[in-house]
Amino acid sequence: MKFIHTSDWHLGRQLHNEPLLDEQAHMLEQIMELAISQAVDALIIAGDIYDRAIPPASAVELLSHFLDRMITDHGIPVVLIAGNHDSHERLGFGSQQMARSGLHIYGPLCAAVQPLQLGDCFFYPIPYAEPAVVRHLLQDDDITTHQQAMAVILQQVMTHDSQGLPKVVVAHCFLDGGSESESERPLSIGGADRIDPTLFQPFDYVALGHLHGPQYRGEAHIRYSGSPLKYSFSEAKQKKSVTLVELEAGRPPIIQQLPITPRKDVRVIEGFLEDLLLAAKSDPTPEDYLMVRLSDTQALLDPMGRLRSRYPNVLHLERTGLMSRQQGEESGRERIKKGELEMFSDFFGQVAGAPMTEAQQQMMTSLIDELHKGELQ
Amino acid sequence: MKFIHTSDWHLGRQLHNEPLLDEQAHMLEQIMELAISQAVDALIIAGDIYDRAIPPASAVELLSHFLDRMITDHGIPVVLIAGNHDSHERLGFGSQQMARSGLHIYGPLCAAVQPLQLGDCFFYPIPYAEPAVVRHLLQDDDITTHQQAMAVILQQVMTHDSQGLPKVVVAHCFLDGGSESESERPLSIGGADRIDPTLFQPFDYVALGHLHGPQYRGEAHIRYSGSPLKYSFSEAKQKKSVTLVELEAGRPPIIQQLPITPRKDVRVIEGFLEDLLLAAKSDPTPEDYLMVRLSDTQALLDPMGRLRSRYPNVLHLERTGLMSRQQGEESGRERIKKGELEMFSDFFGQVAGAPMTEAQQQMMTSLIDELHKGELQ
Repeated sequence: MKFIHTSDWHLGRQLHNEPLLDEQAHMLEQIMELAISQAVDALIIAGDIYDRAIPPASAVELLSHFLDRMITDHGIPVVLIAGNHDSHERLGFGSQQMARSGLHIYGPLCAAVQPLQLGDCFFYPIPYAEPAVVRHLLQDDDITTHQQAMAVILQQVMTHDSQGLPKVVVAHCFLDGGSESESERPLSIGGADRIDPTLFQPFDYVALGHLHGPQYRGEAHIRYSGSPLKYSFSEAKQKKSVTLVELEAGRPPIIQQLPITPRKDVRVIEGFLEDLLLAAKSDPTPEDYLMVRLSDTQALLDPMGRLRSRYPNVLHLERTGLMSRQQGEESGRERIKKGELEMFSDFFGQVAGAPMTEAQQQMMTSLIDELHKGELQ
Repeated sequence: MKFIHTSDWHLGRQLHNEPLLDEQAHMLEQIMELAISQAVDALIIAGDIYDRAIPPASAVELLSHFLDRMITDHGIPVVLIAGNHDSHERLGFGSQQMARSGLHIYGPLCAAVQPLQLGDCFFYPIPYAEPAVVRHLLQDDDITTHQQAMAVILQQVMTHDSQGLPKVVVAHCFLDGGSESESERPLSIGGADRIDPTLFQPFDYVALGHLHGPQYRGEAHIRYSGSPLKYSFSEAKQKKSVTLVELEAGRPPIIQQLPITPRKDVRVIEGFLEDLLLAAKSDPTPEDYLMVRLSDTQALLDPMGRLRSRYPNVLHLERTGLMSRQQGEESGRERIKKGELEMFSDFFGQVAGAPMTEAQQQMMTSLIDELHKGELQ
């Protein structure tokens, strides 16, 4: 059994209000090409297929076309489970009718785990569920944490007779010690969502979803594929990929990360405005999605507009220079006044092309004073 | 070929803010029982499956369970097309994967009509589409009306070689002369949605959706099944049903309407409050959804509360008595003043159990006068 493990597609997601559907379509193309070139027996998607319970219709259409091609044109079965971002009921619609064609969707969690044999391997898909849902479903009042819920479900997987075939668990959860990114929605507050990785040790491979950085916990076969795209600037340094897994009974799995190359990367650049504008000329990929951290300490005229003339997809601007300068200065009304004069002076310089004269500065100072007196009345 | 034709389920719809999901589940049970007892070869649903583009998750689940039972448990194929209330993309998700199991969903319209052979019959499902969509899809600038769009699509059905098997068109549209209910959303304004029924004459049966009252147009085989439930008080007098069709090559179809009996009917009752409250005692189905038209001409204390103590599902109250009295009276400030005194007098009588005394009436008149003077200042 050879399969690709991926997760956290978040179809329909935006990055700082920028729609990503074209990027996602490009990413899906790569996954399809990898699946074909590696001649995999299945594609496994471990939850968070969509970004929202009600995804945009365009995202539904994108996934539908992808699945048509994977399954009908290329004969590659697809197994997918609902994550915490998905609507279980909506995703699960018609899943019984789809299974016969090789599309195995697991929407709402069932009381009995549903083993799925594909080739010489058993898959155990466990859609994301709140502990309260599991408690209700299994009528087990002792279940209050994610750890307890998962333990009870995995007990079923343990006892299922796979007739010697390898067991692959597919789940969407947060393993203790996992490293987070900003684009994941916490499953619960205060650490109650953490699950001990050793719970998963008995299985041959554990295909996890939820965390966006690729990583394994405990042992190499208990693994997050990570998202195939960067969904926040906190993921700028992650290398995105899907995970290729080869499984044979009685042998440890052979695991490989196959890189996914975005059309536009997500990067953070930092420096002085003029330096960055200069550097743009030799930047090989100025169309990337950028967060820009400006070191400049003085006021700047329309820095976003100037940056976008060179880097059209600057999505977020941070004035780190201004922030650190302000933190170092004395506080109080005097600091604010000085700040205003300085800011106007910088602005004047940029618009007029020359600094303010002595007279102009005095005029400005008295104007600011007057305004502040007005404030106090 | 023997099939049930139905349409306009509007799953997830409410009636005057009252959720109807339980009623809809009950209705689906009846349709399933009829399909089984009549041993039909297929169930055809001619659009408006859901009430909204984004139906509640509970409605999605209801339909999913129904289809599982129809198809997996009873082996009855289901053909359904999107109506003007449905999201074509959402409804169409995974339809290629479902077809093999006998669930044939037609979401977005395709440029080429998609004939579906079931048993000894060909079905031609035509999901609802705006003329602009058809114009774009077929790249035919001459298409501006519903009539033109349908004509071009039906041309494809005409020329398809069914090898002598009967042709059944499934469509969601408004045929000229059709009688409307209040619960249908118009396809366009000013009659541009009307299609000449003779367009459909050449086919063996035409299973239509959109109009909620069962009816045929032009010829008996060009037919709306109507909705299986009453979705507005304007449908109170309609007899709801599904349509049973038996088709054999070379013979006219045998058509029967199979009644659907709601758990709670939708009715309009009319009369004086006291009479209606009295009649409630011998009403065999006081739980029905009711619109009540009150003939009383005087003010009433909490008529809705009193009615609901006997008829728990009064959803709408019309004071037809008050309305007609007011229409008959002279207008102007005097009428308003008289109205106020009279209303208070009725109210006083009901609360105190006795009419106002002369002194109380004078007191009230001068109070109202004073209030009106205040208004003028």
